[in-house]
Amino acid sequence: MDPQEAGERQKALSLLFEPKTVAVIGASDKPAKLGFHVMKSLIDGGYEGKLIPVNPNAVKIMGLPAVSDVEQAPGAIDLAVVVLPATLVPGIFKACGKKGIRAVVLITAGFKEIDDPEGGEMQDALARIAEKAGITVIGPNTFGIVNCHKNLNASFTPEFSMVEKGPVALVSQSGGFSHLLAFMAMRQGVGLSKIVGLGNRLNTDFGDMLDFLMQDPATTSIALYLEGLDNPLPFLAAATAHRGKKPVVAYKTGRAHMGDEASLSHTGSLAGNQDIYEGALTQAGILNVNSSEALLDTAHALSLCALPKGPRVAILSGQAGPAMAACDVCEAEGLKMAVFSKETRAVIHGLLPPLALRKNPVDMGPAWYDSGAIRGIVQAVMQDPQVDGIVLLMMFASANREALSVLSQCLGSRNPEKPITGCLLAPPGIWDQEVQALEEAKALVHLPTPERAAKVMVNLWRYAMLFNKSEDRRQSGSP
Amino acid sequence: MDPQEAGERQKALSLLFEPKTVAVIGASDKPAKLGFHVMKSLIDGGYEGKLIPVNPNAVKIMGLPAVSDVEQAPGAIDLAVVVLPATLVPGIFKACGKKGIRAVVLITAGFKEIDDPEGGEMQDALARIAEKAGITVIGPNTFGIVNCHKNLNASFTPEFSMVEKGPVALVSQSGGFSHLLAFMAMRQGVGLSKIVGLGNRLNTDFGDMLDFLMQDPATTSIALYLEGLDNPLPFLAAATAHRGKKPVVAYKTGRAHMGDEASLSHTGSLAGNQDIYEGALTQAGILNVNSSEALLDTAHALSLCALPKGPRVAILSGQAGPAMAACDVCEAEGLKMAVFSKETRAVIHGLLPPLALRKNPVDMGPAWYDSGAIRGIVQAVMQDPQVDGIVLLMMFASANREALSVLSQCLGSRNPEKPITGCLLAPPGIWDQEVQALEEAKALVHLPTPERAAKVMVNLWRYAMLFNKSEDRRQSGSP
Repeated sequence: MDPQEAGERQKALSLLFEPKTVAVIGASDKPAKLGFHVMKSLIDGGYEGKLIPVNPNAVKIMGLPAVSDVEQAPGAIDLAVVVLPATLVPGIFKACGKKGIRAVVLITAGFKEIDDPEGGEMQDALARIAEKAGITVIGPNTFGIVNCHKNLNASFTPEFSMVEKGPVALVSQSGGFSHLLAFMAMRQGVGLSKIVGLGNRLNTDFGDMLDFLMQDPATTSIALYLEGLDNPLPFLAAATAHRGKKPVVAYKTGRAHMGDEASLSHTGSLAGNQDIYEGALTQAGILNVNSSEALLDTAHALSLCALPKGPRVAILSGQAGPAMAACDVCEAEGLKMAVFSKETRAVIHGLLPPLALRKNPVDMGPAWYDSGAIRGIVQAVMQDPQVDGIVLLMMFASANREALSVLSQCLGSRNPEKPITGCLLAPPGIWDQEVQALEEAKALVHLPTPERAAKVMVNLWRYAMLFNKSEDRRQSGSP
Repeated sequence: MDPQEAGERQKALSLLFEPKTVAVIGASDKPAKLGFHVMKSLIDGGYEGKLIPVNPNAVKIMGLPAVSDVEQAPGAIDLAVVVLPATLVPGIFKACGKKGIRAVVLITAGFKEIDDPEGGEMQDALARIAEKAGITVIGPNTFGIVNCHKNLNASFTPEFSMVEKGPVALVSQSGGFSHLLAFMAMRQGVGLSKIVGLGNRLNTDFGDMLDFLMQDPATTSIALYLEGLDNPLPFLAAATAHRGKKPVVAYKTGRAHMGDEASLSHTGSLAGNQDIYEGALTQAGILNVNSSEALLDTAHALSLCALPKGPRVAILSGQAGPAMAACDVCEAEGLKMAVFSKETRAVIHGLLPPLALRKNPVDMGPAWYDSGAIRGIVQAVMQDPQVDGIVLLMMFASANREALSVLSQCLGSRNPEKPITGCLLAPPGIWDQEVQALEEAKALVHLPTPERAAKVMVNLWRYAMLFNKSEDRRQSGSP
């Protein structure tokens, strides 16, 4: 793609995510139609621009005046969301072209993903029309897109508007996975910037989204769900070009034999050899993870905290058991238990009685009621040059409730130079706000279990290593 | 232990979990004291028996008349909860013995777990007093015990009373882990029968708890958290004796070198060689898992559903992406993707268009609005003799909301002969009840992600294999 074309593409993507006018082609007021849910998403989601339902059989839809075809719409249209049957789409694209529409979200399915070769041919023909008309297309076979910070929910899922606004962009080849990750984010309180379903990727692929999201001020880290790509090179080239600018984490399924066959039917691409993919992604500065939990947890963490400068982790815990679980994960996955400096050891020995674990992991249990002790230990370990990251664990209930307040105070409201991941768990609905406030202040990254808190520290280090290693490689002249 | 002694021990454990009278020795109305929280747990938890606070410096505590020492208490006492400093405990045990108290929950810490050899000596001395007085002790160094179905919260954590009543018993060597697992259970809606913190195990260990819980009608499955045992043989003997009666799942930490040192200080036992432990537990019919999530998920599943008769799994999904993730987990961990029978294939081909995944995984997406199709597919796969278990996945929002109702109808209200694990995820707080109803009807086991739904099916099969294998072994005459 030449620079001018690339610039045009990025301009179209801006229209797509920040349109002043949206036309819904196939809008409906019948709840059995996707066109109903798209209208509902835009209206209930609080879209602030002009919304034009397009439907030849309606005068008004959800209180808005409808037009019979898109060319009849008054004024310019930045984005068209299309929810009509596949056979009608070529005609609609031509009309969009005439109307000067440069951005389309094509929800319609029934193209390259179907068993019938006709589907692929239809998609190819559509791509030619789009190219000729200069239309940037998300889809086909997608739920749509969501720009959380702009209240633009251009999808068939009104519930996406329930998501918390935040710094993590989700880009997925699978609509199901976008829903899964967004619902998980809602349940975990992880804030999102964009939710994008690429579907069959007519002319907008992962590489285009990386180009766009690297420029997007609302996005701090990027989570990708992949199955397989016909032509992964432009994506890998984009990733390499943006290497290290913003963290990118990828979860690729399709390792299983049957899953691979499933991918072909699903979004028209063979998932292909997992190891080759993982190697190529790593080369391009993208961190591979292997579950939906790890994808969301890690992208969330990378949006919030500093990277560890080394593998030496300290585990500070309110109880010994959870510390041991975290310890097992850290050691099994390549982190080292930090050996505290003499100064830190002196502080801890001064603050904790001999009956406690004082080495590492540190069991702060005996200091539950001693705010000075907790503060002293946490601060000493944060400042210890022999510690690169901290896993902070505490189970809370009314008996040691005070310790949470102390932690909140001593972690303060600033983003520490060292990453702190934690599991500060209490019964639901009682002290969730206090933990949430710590995350909002970027004082720590909160995870639902000690093992996941440890695993995220592992992944922060794995991500840091991606760059340490390649710097070494570059310096030593090897490819 | 001779049978009479064992019988006495079980009788004492019955007193412990179903006491008609409880004395709290060290009761307090000062929130900074654990004795305050223990009183609060018992009162707020709705304990229905007689509650006697023991404190020489109070006339009334929380509205209840206090006695100055336990021997002054009127009438018989079934259970004493002790929260006084370690040095006072020997005297209290003697007083309990005189009063005829046979069961004690000893919350006090500062015995074998401390760095000082004196702690171990104190514990040994205490064990001799307890033996002489015939007292069965939970602890020392424990938060206590909870009998959910009897509203007995004899712990320092009033919030344990928020837990849903259910069939899973948690027995843990670590108080922190009991809290973690109970809080996770609350957040996941998993019901518990008992929560037991064994602490330093003065004279009640995992083996005693297995003996007791195998007889407990409220407990269907048992989750154990272990770090290491000084004398694992009685536990392994008990497990072997009860092999297969009720499912037992164990999570043992201490694989890491530093964690192992931590365990020694934590509950006075070296965690020891992980592989030897895992082998011994497997031999005894206990399933090993390796995370807090897997422990809770698997114990929950084993309390709800049938075991798979073979490794052939069907993945039925509302969206292809999550199905691929589940597929990867199943294949990586030893399950086989079922090849459907001719009959099932004919049903599915009749109900789903060619554009769908119809083999396995099955993408039921195209049938979102067709209740007959979803019913037909699910029923055909449930009846297919070539399928041993089903992983059912669907992401729900208003556009495909109807499919959830259809699933609810066609899964019906009976416990199917084949296990069904599932992730039916929606935005929080909207359709949770419908999914919960399916679990209450034992129609499926619900997990928060597709990978965890797949992993639980793997673990159900691993548990089933434990017995298939040993049956083979027994038949072939090897040990």
